Amino acid sequence: MAQSRKNFVQACAAIVVSVVLNGAAWAQNFVATDTQSVMQSINDYRAEHETEIIKDFAALLSLPNVATNLSDMTKNADHISTLLESRGFSTKRLSAGGAPYVYAELLNPSATETVLIYAHFDGQPVQEENWVYPPFEPTLLDAPLQSGGQPVNIDDVEGDFDPEWRLYARSAGDDKMPIIALVHALDALRENGIELSVNLKLLLDGEEERGSPTVGRILEENLELFDVDLLLFCDGPMHQSRQTQLVFGVRGGRTLDITTYGANRPLHSGHYGNWAPNPIMNLAYLLTSMRDETGRILIDGYYDNVATLTELERAAIADMPDVALLLQDELSVHTPEGAGTRLEELITLPALNARGIVAGGVGDKGRNIILSNATVSLNLRLVPNQSPERVRELIEAHVSEQGFYIVHEDPTNEDLRTHQKVAKLDWRGAGGPGLRTPLDHPMSLRLVKLMRTISPELIVTPSMGGGLPLHAFDTQLEAPIIVLPLANHDNNQHAENENIRLQNVWDAMSIYGTLLATFGEM
Amino acid sequence: MAQSRKNFVQACAAIVVSVVLNGAAWAQNFVATDTQSVMQSINDYRAEHETEIIKDFAALLSLPNVATNLSDMTKNADHISTLLESRGFSTKRLSAGGAPYVYAELLNPSATETVLIYAHFDGQPVQEENWVYPPFEPTLLDAPLQSGGQPVNIDDVEGDFDPEWRLYARSAGDDKMPIIALVHALDALRENGIELSVNLKLLLDGEEERGSPTVGRILEENLELFDVDLLLFCDGPMHQSRQTQLVFGVRGGRTLDITTYGANRPLHSGHYGNWAPNPIMNLAYLLTSMRDETGRILIDGYYDNVATLTELERAAIADMPDVALLLQDELSVHTPEGAGTRLEELITLPALNARGIVAGGVGDKGRNIILSNATVSLNLRLVPNQSPERVRELIEAHVSEQGFYIVHEDPTNEDLRTHQKVAKLDWRGAGGPGLRTPLDHPMSLRLVKLMRTISPELIVTPSMGGGLPLHAFDTQLEAPIIVLPLANHDNNQHAENENIRLQNVWDAMSIYGTLLATFGEM
Repeated sequence: MAQSRKNFVQACAAIVVSVVLNGAAWAQNFVATDTQSVMQSINDYRAEHETEIIKDFAALLSLPNVATNLSDMTKNADHISTLLESRGFSTKRLSAGGAPYVYAELLNPSATETVLIYAHFDGQPVQEENWVYPPFEPTLLDAPLQSGGQPVNIDDVEGDFDPEWRLYARSAGDDKMPIIALVHALDALRENGIELSVNLKLLLDGEEERGSPTVGRILEENLELFDVDLLLFCDGPMHQSRQTQLVFGVRGGRTLDITTYGANRPLHSGHYGNWAPNPIMNLAYLLTSMRDETGRILIDGYYDNVATLTELERAAIADMPDVALLLQDELSVHTPEGAGTRLEELITLPALNARGIVAGGVGDKGRNIILSNATVSLNLRLVPNQSPERVRELIEAHVSEQGFYIVHEDPTNEDLRTHQKVAKLDWRGAGGPGLRTPLDHPMSLRLVKLMRTISPELIVTPSMGGGLPLHAFDTQLEAPIIVLPLANHDNNQHAENENIRLQNVWDAMSIYGTLLATFGEM
Repeated sequence: MAQSRKNFVQACAAIVVSVVLNGAAWAQNFVATDTQSVMQSINDYRAEHETEIIKDFAALLSLPNVATNLSDMTKNADHISTLLESRGFSTKRLSAGGAPYVYAELLNPSATETVLIYAHFDGQPVQEENWVYPPFEPTLLDAPLQSGGQPVNIDDVEGDFDPEWRLYARSAGDDKMPIIALVHALDALRENGIELSVNLKLLLDGEEERGSPTVGRILEENLELFDVDLLLFCDGPMHQSRQTQLVFGVRGGRTLDITTYGANRPLHSGHYGNWAPNPIMNLAYLLTSMRDETGRILIDGYYDNVATLTELERAAIADMPDVALLLQDELSVHTPEGAGTRLEELITLPALNARGIVAGGVGDKGRNIILSNATVSLNLRLVPNQSPERVRELIEAHVSEQGFYIVHEDPTNEDLRTHQKVAKLDWRGAGGPGLRTPLDHPMSLRLVKLMRTISPELIVTPSMGGGLPLHAFDTQLEAPIIVLPLANHDNNQHAENENIRLQNVWDAMSIYGTLLATFGEM
């Protein structure tokens, strides 16, 4: 009886939330009208300038951009600054000892709010030999490579470009596209006499693929530039359904390698088998003590600080396309972890993933020895409000509780002789916390409303499962952070044959132009 | 009360056994006198021929002897046959498609018993760059290498060679020494007019380091040659205490690689962490279900066929030097596995050793993925009367019981899609059973008695922990098998800088000569 009443109350709350997210309050007609006409103007402009846009994009993509090559990164920054300045931006080069960042602003004296857009122009290192077309010679194909796509000469195209065509180059999908889409969206607005409804600021990162090591200092040293009302973080692939998506959170992370020990040297498994401690087994016992078969973490207190989902977040998850069965089939997964909870909710919880384990050899590399140590690498995914420091404390307490003497450097013989079990805990980096911008923040509500007029099937995602370098922004800026991914989900980011689907570039122009033209007036 | 009576009975049995092993019955004076005078003759002869013996040994060691190089192995066999024929042996080359074996016999018409001695003349492959002195240029050093030993020119030595000097070369310790010790022991007997008390047969293996793949067929096809009363298996290092040792058993073995599966490809640990099954965790659960923290195997029925130790075996173990504390200190082991049972007994029990585990990377090679599979390599040590086939059945039943669908080839996507957990079991080779020759076999009793007159501190070892290729002999021959190791324990066998301590050569001559001169007359 009590249970069924509780269910009823929850159901009512979900209905209310659903109304808030989807209902009348989100889709006032005047906005819809405005956005529709702005979108139309942008699309018309784009249709007439496709060759120019693609060539502009190709020129930017032809600049090698590995963050550690400062000379290359300076060329990229120069090129981008020129693109921006020719659209009236004032630009500034920011750096704090790493690769350059490009800051730019385009202010509208009549606007009262400021939107900051983040993207990055560095790319993952390339292994040229794995690419079908050279990574810095952008190549337009008339279909995805794996579907037999053939090169198209851009100058030979008459009429529209097929929006399913793809441009292949490093950083096509991750993450130079926002820069090109933005400047051409601004061209479209100007040609149509449409003003920006907000002040626009850009921060273009030159070292994201290295983990943006200096972004914290850059923000800290230039705080006056970043007094903004909303940060739109434009990186990452879109949802597999190809629907436009807003993401309101990320998971944080920490990496921990744990090494367990046997004797101080490998021993013959015949002479010493049953006597010498086996570090692989000790590691297996430790691992199974940390996590159950559904992925639930068994460490005392681990979930104590975890922020539970709000009703709005639960409702948003319920509204997301359910891709579980498709994924299970595609990935050949009979039973996912998580005891039946859906993927989109599971990734709002902390995860403890054994990402690698190495000791001795298997197959032809196996030797009949009892090893002297074994190492597992753990990748911890953190969510609000877990702190990386607290997680470390809890894990170390757990490992101790399992009877291990903890060291942080290789143990001495004396350490091994005087303790029954020894574990080395190698915390690799300080890690970062997770982040979720509340769905009921005024900026969240307004952005969702606007985006639904552009894209009625908008997917509102409370949190993605992975991380993004948002922590420095979250610490330094007052503004809410919302992630707006624009690249096709199958863009092969980080790998060979990275690419962007042309329709994603066109959509990005539409979204940027419409948003900048209307957001400040909603 | 019942318990204390049982203890008393056990104590009495141990005393009886101890008397049998150590007491008057084992050391009749006439044998002692005989053996002492024979030993003296051999030692005197040796003292006058040390340079010659060492040069003979060096000549044999200078022949490269990796079993897969048949031309090299033929040169070794020719050289050895010449050595033997010049001592009156008739020799025969045996082969069954692999490297050659040398069979030799030296018969005494008045002897009624036949002793077969086994040794091998092939060696482990060498990595020349790791050797301080070239592996096939035998080098005499005036101390162990790690104690700063310097080369000695054999021809420059006047008077006796220091017995602590060492000869460095591949196969010095494993296992060409018995051949040289034997032929020179026979020279010593002949020069002193001492007859052999037994017929002597030799089987010298040319492919032991490859696992003697054809020895079974060689025995089977030449059974008439091997109708012997005792097989003395001369391979392996002696006890660390440097005491002479007889070993009456070995453990058998099987190798099994187990692979567990997650999704059919590696997945981003952010996007899928808490959802994608983790193969490392599945493997950890499986491993911990197979074995407890003391090394006790938890698989149903695993100990059912295990032969318990006889009272004589228990007494022999009790008499062995207890090296546990020394080992624990040397190897930095705080608490061995085995719940307090001593090493020498633990190695008479089955062992399940995780010898390697590999999945993804650790340290700088770690990547934030959930792997698609993980593999552990297990090395199973078997004891009488476990059969490798039964062990396979029991393990497969256990893995099934843990919820795994078992495959023996890589699983298909369909296998993964239709089963919650899948494990590939890769049985690497058929394996072999363990073996223990009863300590109360008449040949065992007689050999122990004789050896104690040569070496009063003789160590009687019911079983070594490792394996030796005895299975084919055990299957084909009627004779009991006893292992007589003669190389120094620190001979670096299989590794670089393999060596033999000269005293071990001298002792081997003594043992062989005395044994052959007196064993048949005891």
